[in-house]
Amino acid sequence: MNDRFIRACRREPVDRTPVWMMRQAGRYLKDYRDIRQKIGFLDLCKNVDLAVEVSLQPLHILDVDAVIFFSDILIPVEAMGIEVSLTDKGPEIANPIRSRADVERLRVPDPSSEIPFTGAILRALRNELRNATPLVGFAGAPWTLATYMIEGGGSKSFSEIKSLAYTDPRTLEGLLDKLASTISAYLRYQIESGAQAVQLFDTWAGELSRRDYERFAFPYVRRIFEEIGNFTPRILYVNGCSAILNVMARSGADVLSIDWRIPISEARARVGNALSLQGNLDPCVLLGSRSNVKERVEDILREAGPVGHIFNLGHGILPTTPVENARLLVDCVKAYRHTA
Amino acid sequence: MNDRFIRACRREPVDRTPVWMMRQAGRYLKDYRDIRQKIGFLDLCKNVDLAVEVSLQPLHILDVDAVIFFSDILIPVEAMGIEVSLTDKGPEIANPIRSRADVERLRVPDPSSEIPFTGAILRALRNELRNATPLVGFAGAPWTLATYMIEGGGSKSFSEIKSLAYTDPRTLEGLLDKLASTISAYLRYQIESGAQAVQLFDTWAGELSRRDYERFAFPYVRRIFEEIGNFTPRILYVNGCSAILNVMARSGADVLSIDWRIPISEARARVGNALSLQGNLDPCVLLGSRSNVKERVEDILREAGPVGHIFNLGHGILPTTPVENARLLVDCVKAYRHTA
Repeated sequence: MNDRFIRACRREPVDRTPVWMMRQAGRYLKDYRDIRQKIGFLDLCKNVDLAVEVSLQPLHILDVDAVIFFSDILIPVEAMGIEVSLTDKGPEIANPIRSRADVERLRVPDPSSEIPFTGAILRALRNELRNATPLVGFAGAPWTLATYMIEGGGSKSFSEIKSLAYTDPRTLEGLLDKLASTISAYLRYQIESGAQAVQLFDTWAGELSRRDYERFAFPYVRRIFEEIGNFTPRILYVNGCSAILNVMARSGADVLSIDWRIPISEARARVGNALSLQGNLDPCVLLGSRSNVKERVEDILREAGPVGHIFNLGHGILPTTPVENARLLVDCVKAYRHTA
Repeated sequence: MNDRFIRACRREPVDRTPVWMMRQAGRYLKDYRDIRQKIGFLDLCKNVDLAVEVSLQPLHILDVDAVIFFSDILIPVEAMGIEVSLTDKGPEIANPIRSRADVERLRVPDPSSEIPFTGAILRALRNELRNATPLVGFAGAPWTLATYMIEGGGSKSFSEIKSLAYTDPRTLEGLLDKLASTISAYLRYQIESGAQAVQLFDTWAGELSRRDYERFAFPYVRRIFEEIGNFTPRILYVNGCSAILNVMARSGADVLSIDWRIPISEARARVGNALSLQGNLDPCVLLGSRSNVKERVEDILREAGPVGHIFNLGHGILPTTPVENARLLVDCVKAYRHTA
């Protein structure tokens, strides 16, 4: 039984640092691309057999220490009553949320009846994994989901959602509140279905000033983590988190998953020793030379130390990553020995 | 004579905090859009009379404390021998730099003979301003210019330039070196032509890990600032700078221009009292309510204190900004009195 990942989440001693990668089941794998030839992205998220197969690919190909189930953060958004499509440019929402009436129309779905395939995927994965490798559930955090719902897709300046925040904050808060209820229930359903840890992706919360982070992102994350309770390790990811790390540390997260912009030793100094850190290699390093991959991986391991660290990227693995470099990363983490 | 801006750059006492806005001559102004109806963006940068007119619009319409000359950071890149076009989506470079041979072909232009219109614009502006309002020159920093030259335009993950950094760092360093020579000469030419302060835009340096910032961005900025010398205040802007502020503080800059993600009081605590700070309102605040604009502007003024602060946005003003809100920002800064 490989429980390194769970032990590291709890700051317990481990024989070596555990490793997995955000978006590890993805386009950089040929086996994944082969399946995607036959089926669209959102359909794949809803096809239990294929989603299970794809979730397990990185375990078989790279031998990582954790399996994250294959899905998309917009799956529960769709269940709230929003029409989502995925194009080459990313997610697209035909009718973005712009008014209080739009927010009121949204439902808080019951996951077991409205997103049952996610539970089925997790149960099947637990069955396949037989406790040999831990299974991770995940969801988007309210602020990040709201950005897609209001901007109608990806964004550069997040001007639509911020306009709403600065003209009609109550409407935005109404949306964030419904999202928090949805995501809290959704993650608890994932845990009941077999997830042994959960990661909340607040990817775009790093675009906020600290004051706005404290109002429009943080309280909803804290509420979700509180409702989950501390039986299951809770991981919080924010891209571009260095200015809000101290606030994130008070969210109830057991693990903060950080991007590459801040040295992990400095992140540790800022958040103290009460929680674990996950990260934080720049995914672009995997596009470079093998010697550089090795050097950068070892730098992070040395800086992070042996306790309370899970090796990961600072953002999702890029589709253009050579699979040999992803494997090299995993192998370097496994070969590394912390000096006493 | 309004020298508040220059005095604040030098941490000298001022009667009130000076204010201007990045990209203050731009599409949010009807007078600017009227001129752009008649002339393309790059042509406008090269048309001395119209560029002067556009540069002065924010002074006349908003009564800001500094005038920045109208231009684009890619103007010297074009003079190096790169074909630049500007589309609705931003800058586009038809033949991006990918090899050492590409770098070797680039010229280090003599600004007085190859970009003479920038000197003419600055001289004409100094003549118009008659020392009543300070005139700011600017350029893109080597790393940021290199991102456009290598990615071929804007980017989300900066994977092309980082691939080069991690496979063939010497070629990238060759490019950065040529860019540093070009920009150093270009800014000195701007100063000779009348610029009374210069701002270096290293907009995308916040995408680097600290280690990469220290290798691929910082040394070139420091060299440029050293070659300029300390007769003219030097301002360094980076978007998403909180993880590298301490390094930026050693660049030789007199002023660090910071984005909104870090509270300005915390930026001050990190960099100490040896230099000034410029910023740091989220430009999206100007898309919201008037009461919120006032509150946020006053928060920053209070946090920053009366000495060594220039009020500005944390990034360029957005094209959708209502001009009344831009004016409100300026008026709020002018009305504010620091308590002793």
